[in-house]
Amino acid sequence: MSLLLAMTGWHVEDWRARFQALLPDMPIVTLGEPFDRRAVHYVASWKHPEGSLAGLPNLAAVFSLGAGVDHLFADTRLPEVPIARVVDPDLTTRMSEYVVLHCLRYLRQQPRYDRQQIDKSWEDDRDQPAARSVRVGIMGLGELGQDAARKLQVMGFDVAGWSRSAKTVEGLATFAGTEGMTAFLARTDILVSLLPLTPETRGTINATLLAGLAQDGRLGGPFLINAGRGGLQVEADILAALDAGTLKGATLDVFEIEPLPADSPLWTHPAVTVTPHNAAMSEPEAIATLISAQIRRLEAGEPLEHVVDPTRGY
Amino acid sequence: MSLLLAMTGWHVEDWRARFQALLPDMPIVTLGEPFDRRAVHYVASWKHPEGSLAGLPNLAAVFSLGAGVDHLFADTRLPEVPIARVVDPDLTTRMSEYVVLHCLRYLRQQPRYDRQQIDKSWEDDRDQPAARSVRVGIMGLGELGQDAARKLQVMGFDVAGWSRSAKTVEGLATFAGTEGMTAFLARTDILVSLLPLTPETRGTINATLLAGLAQDGRLGGPFLINAGRGGLQVEADILAALDAGTLKGATLDVFEIEPLPADSPLWTHPAVTVTPHNAAMSEPEAIATLISAQIRRLEAGEPLEHVVDPTRGY
Repeated sequence: MSLLLAMTGWHVEDWRARFQALLPDMPIVTLGEPFDRRAVHYVASWKHPEGSLAGLPNLAAVFSLGAGVDHLFADTRLPEVPIARVVDPDLTTRMSEYVVLHCLRYLRQQPRYDRQQIDKSWEDDRDQPAARSVRVGIMGLGELGQDAARKLQVMGFDVAGWSRSAKTVEGLATFAGTEGMTAFLARTDILVSLLPLTPETRGTINATLLAGLAQDGRLGGPFLINAGRGGLQVEADILAALDAGTLKGATLDVFEIEPLPADSPLWTHPAVTVTPHNAAMSEPEAIATLISAQIRRLEAGEPLEHVVDPTRGY
Repeated sequence: MSLLLAMTGWHVEDWRARFQALLPDMPIVTLGEPFDRRAVHYVASWKHPEGSLAGLPNLAAVFSLGAGVDHLFADTRLPEVPIARVVDPDLTTRMSEYVVLHCLRYLRQQPRYDRQQIDKSWEDDRDQPAARSVRVGIMGLGELGQDAARKLQVMGFDVAGWSRSAKTVEGLATFAGTEGMTAFLARTDILVSLLPLTPETRGTINATLLAGLAQDGRLGGPFLINAGRGGLQVEADILAALDAGTLKGATLDVFEIEPLPADSPLWTHPAVTVTPHNAAMSEPEAIATLISAQIRRLEAGEPLEHVVDPTRGY
């Protein structure tokens, strides 16, 4: 009964050491070495190569090494076994740090003051709105969206949320579905995207959505923060909205292609802030600990937690 | 019975209009015009010229148009009448926006990612501490300090506070006085200064204080955020600590001389963020409303609120 580590882009030997320390009695194998495919009961994956999980006759569960599972569903030959996400409270905290940072950065016009410092300009802006005058709209009301909403409210922002299916969150104005989207966008000065990537959400942040954002807000135009997945956004549409002035700025942690190619105009656009997909990185030790606990749960005959619904894709 | 507006650097006619709308029956006079000095019962001041409030025989109260009153005590011929501060809840919220923004900016290494964007560098940092691993120390536990502490705690930071005299704040580790300063600094990764400027606090942020900050923290060195008063800091000592590497970065909203002179090395230092003394600007309407309410209170025979203790200077 062994655990297969199947990943690309990460240091597999570091992960082996982490898991071995937590599961000292379990053989841990990797894609790069010969191993008995019949012995593999568990897989921990981060962007495993297409088809590499096929032909594992005794596979019982696949664990994503991150909160997102879209990388798993990208594999058309993914075995039909239960898939579990990592739900790391620390990751939620990290994402809220990022979201609150970038909402405050736009509220307090920090990009402007960064530029002014280069020009040694002391000019201030007497028309600075307070957080309560600025409407943040959060798309996605899972763990991440709800925590970010609550913290933005503590900072004083006027927050609302949108989700695919109706959700009630105490103290938060919520909108749902296609029918709620227009009203949600019309009251949004800063749009925060924390949606999962599914076939349904792919390309959500497009020209139509951006055209629906509030143009009557105190920041002089709407802003976008995408800390979800790059596949949610149509970058050509974001650039067109920025150049048309209907979008005033964008902070993007995720991109259609990652790493962001050197020839992308997003790197140099004066109204764009690029971060290297690090809004919410879990500590590897925390991920390994959570997955090891799930494996011990299965071994003890207890049910798997945080199982993904394959029909919804998250 | 009239109100004298005594200010430099601000548009006095805008203030006259604001106060006249709120106090329609009260004559409002300004320093730039002839007026009956015996009729002046109230003064609203922002950096009034030295001595300009002398010879007002019926003066009953002086109101500062801002939260700080150090500009009043700079006048050696200030009349001995009660002085009241503006305590604007909105100003407290604005200051916390600034403090949380800049603490998160250091936590999440935004200055680094700003530089990386210029270089089109995708590099991330796998050793990103969570807020709970970073110790913020707030100097000054008045309205501003307590509100900032609470909000930083919500974001997850490990917060402590220091004040001149001992203070108990629920849920907050506090240190007090000269005897508590060493231990306070030794556990501080990000020092936030919200102290009032008094003869006692002038020059507090000097080489000795900076040398006491924690060198064992998760950010690789301590950071300073001064959003209090420029007179609190010795800029030569801050620059020396930055160049010695004992201070890793500084965000300064206030300066020894304001506007910050063009030849100040702070403008161009790579580890310094300069903002133009706008961390917490009240809306003028809010200030005028609060002072008008105080005047109506006095006229009704009720006591003045937020009276400054002249022996402490705040």
